[in-house]
Amino acid sequence: MPILCVIGDGQLARMMQTAAIELGQSVRVLASSLDASAAQVAADVVLGDYTNLDELRAVTAGSTAVTFDHEHVPNEHLETLIAEGINVQPRPEALINAQDKLVMRTRLKELGAPVPPFAAIESIEDAEKFWNAVEGRVCLKARRGGYDGKGVWFPVSFDELKDLTQELLANGTPLMAEEKVNLVRELSAMVSRRPSGEVKAWPVVESIQKDGICWFAIAPAPGLKEELRAEAERVAIKTAEVLGVTGNLAVELFETPEGIFVNELAMRPHNTGHWTQNGCVTDQFEQHVRAVLDMPLGSTETLQEWTVMANVLGAPEDPEMPMPERMVEVWKRFPDAKIHFYGKGHRPGRKIGHVNMTGAGDVEELRRNGELAAHFLVHAEWKDQ
Amino acid sequence: MPILCVIGDGQLARMMQTAAIELGQSVRVLASSLDASAAQVAADVVLGDYTNLDELRAVTAGSTAVTFDHEHVPNEHLETLIAEGINVQPRPEALINAQDKLVMRTRLKELGAPVPPFAAIESIEDAEKFWNAVEGRVCLKARRGGYDGKGVWFPVSFDELKDLTQELLANGTPLMAEEKVNLVRELSAMVSRRPSGEVKAWPVVESIQKDGICWFAIAPAPGLKEELRAEAERVAIKTAEVLGVTGNLAVELFETPEGIFVNELAMRPHNTGHWTQNGCVTDQFEQHVRAVLDMPLGSTETLQEWTVMANVLGAPEDPEMPMPERMVEVWKRFPDAKIHFYGKGHRPGRKIGHVNMTGAGDVEELRRNGELAAHFLVHAEWKDQ
Repeated sequence: MPILCVIGDGQLARMMQTAAIELGQSVRVLASSLDASAAQVAADVVLGDYTNLDELRAVTAGSTAVTFDHEHVPNEHLETLIAEGINVQPRPEALINAQDKLVMRTRLKELGAPVPPFAAIESIEDAEKFWNAVEGRVCLKARRGGYDGKGVWFPVSFDELKDLTQELLANGTPLMAEEKVNLVRELSAMVSRRPSGEVKAWPVVESIQKDGICWFAIAPAPGLKEELRAEAERVAIKTAEVLGVTGNLAVELFETPEGIFVNELAMRPHNTGHWTQNGCVTDQFEQHVRAVLDMPLGSTETLQEWTVMANVLGAPEDPEMPMPERMVEVWKRFPDAKIHFYGKGHRPGRKIGHVNMTGAGDVEELRRNGELAAHFLVHAEWKDQ
Repeated sequence: MPILCVIGDGQLARMMQTAAIELGQSVRVLASSLDASAAQVAADVVLGDYTNLDELRAVTAGSTAVTFDHEHVPNEHLETLIAEGINVQPRPEALINAQDKLVMRTRLKELGAPVPPFAAIESIEDAEKFWNAVEGRVCLKARRGGYDGKGVWFPVSFDELKDLTQELLANGTPLMAEEKVNLVRELSAMVSRRPSGEVKAWPVVESIQKDGICWFAIAPAPGLKEELRAEAERVAIKTAEVLGVTGNLAVELFETPEGIFVNELAMRPHNTGHWTQNGCVTDQFEQHVRAVLDMPLGSTETLQEWTVMANVLGAPEDPEMPMPERMVEVWKRFPDAKIHFYGKGHRPGRKIGHVNMTGAGDVEELRRNGELAAHFLVHAEWKDQ
């Protein structure tokens, strides 16, 4: 059986692993510590640093394919591995678009995908020019490394933009800016593509953020106009094809009165795809494994009318009630709640698990139930009582 | 999080593990070798012998609960562990009914469950008496240790029964006999029960055997009369309650023109429950984990009209085409096939994996497709071409 090497030790690697076990695959994980989320539960763990070429060489040797649970492996190392015969999926020329927001925006604009007006910000002059061009509706972004609301700023005055730009450029943070959109809500269009070309799309979902962190995903996005749904799916498929993405691609989108705009790309399993574990014939972890091994993709059909995913986000304090008892209380109230935990300790805002709720009928009730369950798992209290 | 200790290293332990990982639980496996099915993929493996009390003490120390993927741990060791404060689920007084067919038959008869006429066979005289009582319709069984068609004999003459009885008793094989039933087909009624009493039943399935080994499970059992379905479910629930089973209970049943009769009991995840992985809100592995940890049980509702499970049984020869390519071919033809492999090498008749197919409409077509897929995975050829 193939050895699939996963660079990264978080919950995405952990869930890729459980999916791969069921397929009989062997998974080797490059982890930073033995108590990392994926390392806790994997049989074949190599400790090492994903920025160190020799350690990457050691862990990838003999693997059928190499994939990732994050986008932070230096592309020059990946180029070297590929030159040495290692099968890296996705390829660095695709990955760069998930690493550098300016590269991504430029590329997406070229391929005709809807992106807000944007510009590279390499000086105060660039900032001023863009501020004027969009009449102060500026979203400033670090080109690399931002996630969960980090690396994004909304200056309310040009002075603030100037100060931010000065400070960040001085720190060595490459910047870009884009026009703030009239956000109605966020959407996510996910697809998976395999090297020989097959692409499959999951339904477009609504994603609800809290302090910049994904809080809920609702599948499919309630009330989404068919033309927007079709465009979101088309953009995701085209992006995967044109950029040569392999494995999963999540296209995070803004829905606005003016239509949809691409926000971010991720080339791996993604938080907005966790709902597929209980909502689809083929979940995103199995699909990613199949895709990077260039195996035919599975059906992405849904199993029920609605699936809601609620993230379990760590709170400032861990209550006294032990977690297993909290699970008991949640299952007593919601016997259908599908709880997924990552083996991670408490920390405010940290994603430590998620709850999937699947059903038909009133999707808002399902979302509320997901919220109640996820909240109880962190706070040991019912938010509605 | 609780440490769940699983005694046994086969595919049932392996699949309990993947279910437990998703729930954030820690699983510790007692395995006979590092390349055993469950040991291959578990992070916490203890090598040892499940018949050795000291090794059982070592692996179970500090666990929240101890459970099994087989029924072969000596009950006196389990009694000792319990006396020493270890939480063993299920308990030996329940397990004995899955270990000794005579004890099971006697107990089931007491509780009013439908069993064929039976008798202990401790001498040639017992055999003769039973032969006459059932007019030669004798099924002779080893009281312990039989599985997959082993330990069961159908003597066609009294002489054959006499010889068998003599030989087996001389070998030290405790025996029982029961009346051969007019088998229409085999059914399986599965439930899960937790120590505090909650019981949940999955739909009753049809199980199709080949040379005494489970070949297909079809869920729910097609065309099963409602009165038989209800009786099968009632028998399984009552058996779980009266015997104090914890975790899963599979009641294998004979359907006959005279009604249903209990054939075997298993107190663990069971082959006829593998379909639940893709066919139910809560699969048997997650449910078993929840049950033995005394957590509320999940919904056993089905996700589609039909689910067919086809076992992948090893053939005398392993074809040249590598297994990953066989998977590719199967998925090309059946993109919805859910393949589960156990990491086991080829051996004739050995269960090395299973395929679940879920759908609506023509169940016989679904069964045929499951058969084609499972056959291809072993023989690298389409049975219908």
